[in-house]
Amino acid sequence: MDIARIRQEDRQLHAFASLQEDAAVQRAQSAAQGPLAGRLVAVKDIFDTADLPTAYGSAIYARHRPASEAAMVGIIRRAGGVIVGKSVTTEFAYLQPAATLNPAAHGCTPGGSSAGSAAAVAAGMVPLAIGSQTGGSTVRPASYCGIAGFKPGFDLLPTSGMKAFSWSLDTVGLFARTVGEVAEFAQAVSGGRIAAPLPASLRRWSVGVPRAYPWGEISQSGQQAMGRAISALRAAGANVVSCDLPAWVGEAFTAHDAIQGWEASRALRREMEEHAAMLSPLLREYLAGAMKVSDAQYADAQATAGVARARGDAWFDGIDVLLTPSAPDEPPEGFGSTGASTFNRAWTLLGTPCLSVPGATGIHGRPMGLQVIAPRGLDSLCLAAGAFLEGALSAFER
Amino acid sequence: MDIARIRQEDRQLHAFASLQEDAAVQRAQSAAQGPLAGRLVAVKDIFDTADLPTAYGSAIYARHRPASEAAMVGIIRRAGGVIVGKSVTTEFAYLQPAATLNPAAHGCTPGGSSAGSAAAVAAGMVPLAIGSQTGGSTVRPASYCGIAGFKPGFDLLPTSGMKAFSWSLDTVGLFARTVGEVAEFAQAVSGGRIAAPLPASLRRWSVGVPRAYPWGEISQSGQQAMGRAISALRAAGANVVSCDLPAWVGEAFTAHDAIQGWEASRALRREMEEHAAMLSPLLREYLAGAMKVSDAQYADAQATAGVARARGDAWFDGIDVLLTPSAPDEPPEGFGSTGASTFNRAWTLLGTPCLSVPGATGIHGRPMGLQVIAPRGLDSLCLAAGAFLEGALSAFER
Repeated sequence: MDIARIRQEDRQLHAFASLQEDAAVQRAQSAAQGPLAGRLVAVKDIFDTADLPTAYGSAIYARHRPASEAAMVGIIRRAGGVIVGKSVTTEFAYLQPAATLNPAAHGCTPGGSSAGSAAAVAAGMVPLAIGSQTGGSTVRPASYCGIAGFKPGFDLLPTSGMKAFSWSLDTVGLFARTVGEVAEFAQAVSGGRIAAPLPASLRRWSVGVPRAYPWGEISQSGQQAMGRAISALRAAGANVVSCDLPAWVGEAFTAHDAIQGWEASRALRREMEEHAAMLSPLLREYLAGAMKVSDAQYADAQATAGVARARGDAWFDGIDVLLTPSAPDEPPEGFGSTGASTFNRAWTLLGTPCLSVPGATGIHGRPMGLQVIAPRGLDSLCLAAGAFLEGALSAFER
Repeated sequence: MDIARIRQEDRQLHAFASLQEDAAVQRAQSAAQGPLAGRLVAVKDIFDTADLPTAYGSAIYARHRPASEAAMVGIIRRAGGVIVGKSVTTEFAYLQPAATLNPAAHGCTPGGSSAGSAAAVAAGMVPLAIGSQTGGSTVRPASYCGIAGFKPGFDLLPTSGMKAFSWSLDTVGLFARTVGEVAEFAQAVSGGRIAAPLPASLRRWSVGVPRAYPWGEISQSGQQAMGRAISALRAAGANVVSCDLPAWVGEAFTAHDAIQGWEASRALRREMEEHAAMLSPLLREYLAGAMKVSDAQYADAQATAGVARARGDAWFDGIDVLLTPSAPDEPPEGFGSTGASTFNRAWTLLGTPCLSVPGATGIHGRPMGLQVIAPRGLDSLCLAAGAFLEGALSAFER
């Protein structure tokens, strides 16, 4: 889509907080070289840009124009990507809904916090977008908007120049229409640290499906989407096995709370102390509670996280990847909530690569993503397994 | 030292890029609560502050005042620390010397890039300071200025809101006069993730001393300082054993180059493309070379780093910590160079905790730090071993 049409369509969609000038986009496209040469990219508005405003979704930073640019912005531009605008984020990437609509589910939330990035890709405005995930802010909106969303492991992509919420959890996320496209995007922005996807035929995939989840029941939509995925995987020759999630997955889920709270009340210290009236009541109350997390609770939670990560590295023995719903349900109707990160939080903390694969639906026919989870450090494997699942779902449908 | 006296002494020392107003310091001191209650802290001028200018040591950012503050600034303030000013950094924490003098070695460089932080602590202006390390920017200036400098492992302290040079290597560093003080500082800013130091008497320390270094010969000053430390450790009851550094330490040293180059040419993309004339020739030439690092070289170097880290975790078996000189030599005379990170680079890449312990001197009687290196994740052990060495050196001297 060209910039004029993006500008026009965004009057309805509200995926962008700001858009680049037409002339600047054309100049950048004609000069672009590299693996992303000339491709349009939307950048979530919590990454600093010097040539576009950066408000972190907060009135405190309205009209803010950083002097410097985030490392991800430098990476995208060096790879030839053209940043067309800043996509809408919820306030500081927390839960207060923004104005973005869901192009794949009329009248439903697009999810959050990377709402604009997911919606812009789903609407076909841009082929590629970046977001972030601290709880479920990449996988959930990808699920709700029916596109691919990839949250790599820690340390693959830099958060430098991104507004922090919880630095131990904040992870850069990537969006594209398909798994193949998001894998190519990941290859380009990681400097080739993501390998080319394995040819699907070369591997007999073993996919683990949890019998139960420490965070609660699976919804009807979740069951429907998982059932379809399992049938499709089996039809494509994969080995699908039931498994029990070990206790430390639940412990990681619980530890997420204390880590995020301790860190958020420091990362947003200035905003709390100097601009409390400009925060949403939802975030203000969250931070007031977060202030009460003690050093001891934080240190304990970090120790739990460390133990869980080390256990997780060994646990996948015999299973290539885990498969779960990407979100508790289809996108809920209305715009009062961006949904919950229940199915994502523990994996974000563990640092396992997670990919939301599109192609299934819930009981109302709305998009329902399937989350592929690979062991830490195996980002390429996660994307290859996701591509296999995407192909299997597509073949099964026909 | 009070703020008026700091201001006065800094006319000679040039440790500060900016100082807080007297009234603001007094207000903050009287309100301060927490483990650092009221203690003065200097913050390297690559960390964003909203109430003090932040120039990253570059003319490009002269008079820049960020809208937001770095996560470390929020942490320090929540712990009751009072930020008295921004300490001088070399340009973007690279090698171009700044104006800071060395209070511990007249006419010699204070080292870099955290020059102002080390000098401010060495001069007694502040008890505590933060800096950063991408090559040797914490351990080296601590060595040259005769104080304690601690570079923790990755992920203990956040780099959010710190200007990136190479995000895979950039690490927050801490300075204090003594190991005991730097350990308390680390405890406070990590939310207690650093344990209280072990009582020295509870452990019979095994200290490994490399027979040779893949990066070259040890200087006469290095030999003198190491000899003194070894004698002191033995006198205090430690087991000092010679060891051979494995091949992957040299590979890590080499991999550092490609990783730093690929990342710096992206982290500083905007400065290179839009403000090249305002960069020092030294940095401009470095970045021009760094641009030539290919994706394949970067991905290879990252893979090497990953393998070396995993091997390192197992390698320390039977040795508590390694001991090396903190820097190639005493602080060199003059101000034309900040010295070299030769003895630090590989460990920064490996993510092992490193501590420069003061108390020894080189052949001209200038400070010569001793570097204690612990396995990844054992930051507390590194500090405890360093406290033992500091005590041993001090007892040996008497």
